[in-house]
Amino acid sequence: MLNESDLVQLLQKESDGFIGDDAAILPLTHSEHYVVTKDLLIEDIHFRTQYYTESDLANKALHVNLSDLCAMGAAPKFILCGIAIPEAQADYGRCFLASLLEACKATKVLLIGGDTTRSTDKLTISITAIGTAKPEHIKYRTGAQHSNFICTVGNLGHAHLGLVAHERNRIELAPPAYKQACLRPQAKLQEGIWLGGQLAVTSMIDLSDGLFLDLKRLCQASNVSGVIDINQLTSDGLFLKTCTDLKLDPLNTILTGGEDYALLCTVKMNDYPRLAHDFFNIFGYPLQHIGHITAGSGAYFTEKGQKKELSLTPFTHFGEKG
Amino acid sequence: MLNESDLVQLLQKESDGFIGDDAAILPLTHSEHYVVTKDLLIEDIHFRTQYYTESDLANKALHVNLSDLCAMGAAPKFILCGIAIPEAQADYGRCFLASLLEACKATKVLLIGGDTTRSTDKLTISITAIGTAKPEHIKYRTGAQHSNFICTVGNLGHAHLGLVAHERNRIELAPPAYKQACLRPQAKLQEGIWLGGQLAVTSMIDLSDGLFLDLKRLCQASNVSGVIDINQLTSDGLFLKTCTDLKLDPLNTILTGGEDYALLCTVKMNDYPRLAHDFFNIFGYPLQHIGHITAGSGAYFTEKGQKKELSLTPFTHFGEKG
Repeated sequence: MLNESDLVQLLQKESDGFIGDDAAILPLTHSEHYVVTKDLLIEDIHFRTQYYTESDLANKALHVNLSDLCAMGAAPKFILCGIAIPEAQADYGRCFLASLLEACKATKVLLIGGDTTRSTDKLTISITAIGTAKPEHIKYRTGAQHSNFICTVGNLGHAHLGLVAHERNRIELAPPAYKQACLRPQAKLQEGIWLGGQLAVTSMIDLSDGLFLDLKRLCQASNVSGVIDINQLTSDGLFLKTCTDLKLDPLNTILTGGEDYALLCTVKMNDYPRLAHDFFNIFGYPLQHIGHITAGSGAYFTEKGQKKELSLTPFTHFGEKG
Repeated sequence: MLNESDLVQLLQKESDGFIGDDAAILPLTHSEHYVVTKDLLIEDIHFRTQYYTESDLANKALHVNLSDLCAMGAAPKFILCGIAIPEAQADYGRCFLASLLEACKATKVLLIGGDTTRSTDKLTISITAIGTAKPEHIKYRTGAQHSNFICTVGNLGHAHLGLVAHERNRIELAPPAYKQACLRPQAKLQEGIWLGGQLAVTSMIDLSDGLFLDLKRLCQASNVSGVIDINQLTSDGLFLKTCTDLKLDPLNTILTGGEDYALLCTVKMNDYPRLAHDFFNIFGYPLQHIGHITAGSGAYFTEKGQKKELSLTPFTHFGEKG
């Protein structure tokens, strides 16, 4: 069976440590580095043209990649776009590219190259995104330290609710905000760049595959353990009602729902109050403290100070088997 | 109908002149630039797993991209690889990645990142290749000038003979060299870098879609016309025999056969003798003079000094309609 983490490990072992973060670093000058990432989006694995308009998909393809850059603390500058278009979707492909150019303008990113080709049957999009960052501002997955606070930036589980409603053809059950979270995720560009500039932030990763899985990745890279205090995972009435309507467990949705493109970072404990205060002042929403880093490995949960066992179903894209 | 050149024009118009060459340029220092390219390879459009071994395909995916870099005069340094693997081809995908790492080592290129995901049915490979070049050594498609000589580096039509033999299931009709040209093309890395360093070379492009089509692209970018002297297009007995066996026209095969990843460049006329002499001394095969640049647009042919009309069938990948 195809095991993606096996493949990634094979590549990591051979890549002189370049692989294993959201993006790769290329030296530019002493005071600035390029940060490079690429993500593939495959029709019926990562999106369906039935409910992603060309504009939605262009926005998503761009932001999925920009999210990897801002999770490193880098400012996006350029993209290259490779696209393989089935004959029957020629119009969709053309509109996608026009929308991608608009989405680039909106994020002040320049499209500098790429490749257009035909596809036998599935629309395939490959974006390479390039940003810049001061070397000392780049945040890796490897920097989390014992007693750091684990913090999140942005909503958790919203995109998953939108996705499930679409997939079950019960879109009336998802409030507009959750549909938007699924169809038009917005990378936390300014937040990522700002957090990159904070010495108190020790590591960062974007939440593409769900909080639990991405926290485990960060902990593995940092050789530490992450403890999530489930009392700190907030949800409002609308979220709970939508979970009920869609027959989903709210906690499981928050912990495993993918594709929110929120940020997860670790922060030095003593600096958290100041950082959270400044973050709220600038961005108008919280740098949410949800747990802490400790010695060991893996990620686990506490409730009211007691360790709690949870049985979680990890997030998979709809074309994937778990 | 899907028209790739329409799409490329749409993107060019909006990209501040970044798009339109084999690769895009990113500033690095005063004395060095990054050169970035990406190409998609889609199963049953660009390759078939029936006759491309994992190692063949890894080599091809790498060299197709490196060829774009060396056509700019750049030295390849890094790649990122995105791969979407159907469940049934998990083993093929794993072997592909192991082979890609070997091919990277052989060309002293470092794999620095990428993305592995599942695909519903077709294996899809997206490579982003990054090289470096001194700014003054970078060769564009736009530099061809009136009275320049048109020159080629490498064999023309060989890969196409291998491809046709494979596609017709008559592989016994293709000599080993042509099979290899199809299955394991070798980018002209050293030649491209060397030509990049020559002031006398005014423009360069790699031959992925056949001599005629790629010359037209170069001429359009340079706003000039290209004249190919068909008496200068050499072929040997083996080539002619294989064309006869496969019922292909030799001249059409030389002019339109794609995927040779040879180089096409334009050279200042007065410098050609010295350059050709040096090239032969270093590489042991000719910098072949096949025509010249003139005012006007498009590409046309002469035979014994007289203009000659040719009816050509342009190269298309086997999954594409012409």
